[in-house]
Amino acid sequence: MVNYPIKKSSTNTVRSSASNRGMDLEAAINQTNDYYISNDIAFIYKKPIPIQVVKVDYLKRSAAKISEAYYKVPSTTDYNGIYKGRYIDFEAKETNSKTSFPMKNIHEHQVSHLRNIVKHGGIGFIIVHFSKLGKTFLLDEQFVSEYYDRKESGRKSITLDEFVEHGHEIKEGYVKRLDYLKVIDQVYTL
Amino acid sequence: MVNYPIKKSSTNTVRSSASNRGMDLEAAINQTNDYYISNDIAFIYKKPIPIQVVKVDYLKRSAAKISEAYYKVPSTTDYNGIYKGRYIDFEAKETNSKTSFPMKNIHEHQVSHLRNIVKHGGIGFIIVHFSKLGKTFLLDEQFVSEYYDRKESGRKSITLDEFVEHGHEIKEGYVKRLDYLKVIDQVYTL
Repeated sequence: MVNYPIKKSSTNTVRSSASNRGMDLEAAINQTNDYYISNDIAFIYKKPIPIQVVKVDYLKRSAAKISEAYYKVPSTTDYNGIYKGRYIDFEAKETNSKTSFPMKNIHEHQVSHLRNIVKHGGIGFIIVHFSKLGKTFLLDEQFVSEYYDRKESGRKSITLDEFVEHGHEIKEGYVKRLDYLKVIDQVYTL
Repeated sequence: MVNYPIKKSSTNTVRSSASNRGMDLEAAINQTNDYYISNDIAFIYKKPIPIQVVKVDYLKRSAAKISEAYYKVPSTTDYNGIYKGRYIDFEAKETNSKTSFPMKNIHEHQVSHLRNIVKHGGIGFIIVHFSKLGKTFLLDEQFVSEYYDRKESGRKSITLDEFVEHGHEIKEGYVKRLDYLKVIDQVYTL
């Protein structure tokens, strides 16, 4: 059972205006995916949050009401799908830090999941949004793995400089809020 | 909001022994996927059931208790993942009928999702378990689409004969409960 922050569990997300520049990362990615789907470009979806249902009330015929349930630890990453015949898999995270992305924001099994995906021919990466900087980067699994492994012996985060050097900035747009497939087109052999 | 049968919403599934021969399709597929994952063969997972969370109680620090939530209609299919570099996507269903699989068991958007997947280079299919016959078939999206389309003007189900003719039986095993990738190897160009 996991204690998710309120943001994840409430249906209507209210963001604090002080700590970001107006972009809700999840909403931006979902909107972008909707654009890809509507325009027959790619079929990438956010997986539902896994919930352990304990008790269901059948008060009315129309809707079963879940009256006791708990959040579970996700086994994989948040997003996956297909683009130009390739399997796409990624995790998306925000950070309030202006200098680095703390590794504790990613589960170990999510890193090994990304490794497995890439080993088997898929494209795996993370998208990290520095909310106070208004910058968003895509970082390939290769670097995520490398930086993840060093946390036992050294730095426990990925620095902004490392994102700048090895990642790819995704510029925010209007029609395509976060056009990460543009990066995929430029960086990966499809 | 969807009213799922009790089987889907309870955590410990108790199956009626009269209506099946001992195979819980979802459990069999999950066990098979676990085998594929443990043996580094394929990374295919069941997506969590989408749930709309309305109310969360923070009684203890350790676990947030969801006290009001409802089932949502899934936007896609139940299972997806990667095998030998290919994107795999399918829906799994059981039927008590001995003669045909009723089309009402599949949502229209699930059929169009499978079409999109195949159009973009993925492998899409359904797995149907005839519980009273103890038989399980894999049927490619091509036939699912064809049979789905005729439901407006003709038959509203896929007959057992059609599964025998155009589908591929998946034999139940012990180590690999339902080795559907064996069919994929035989039938699809990987």
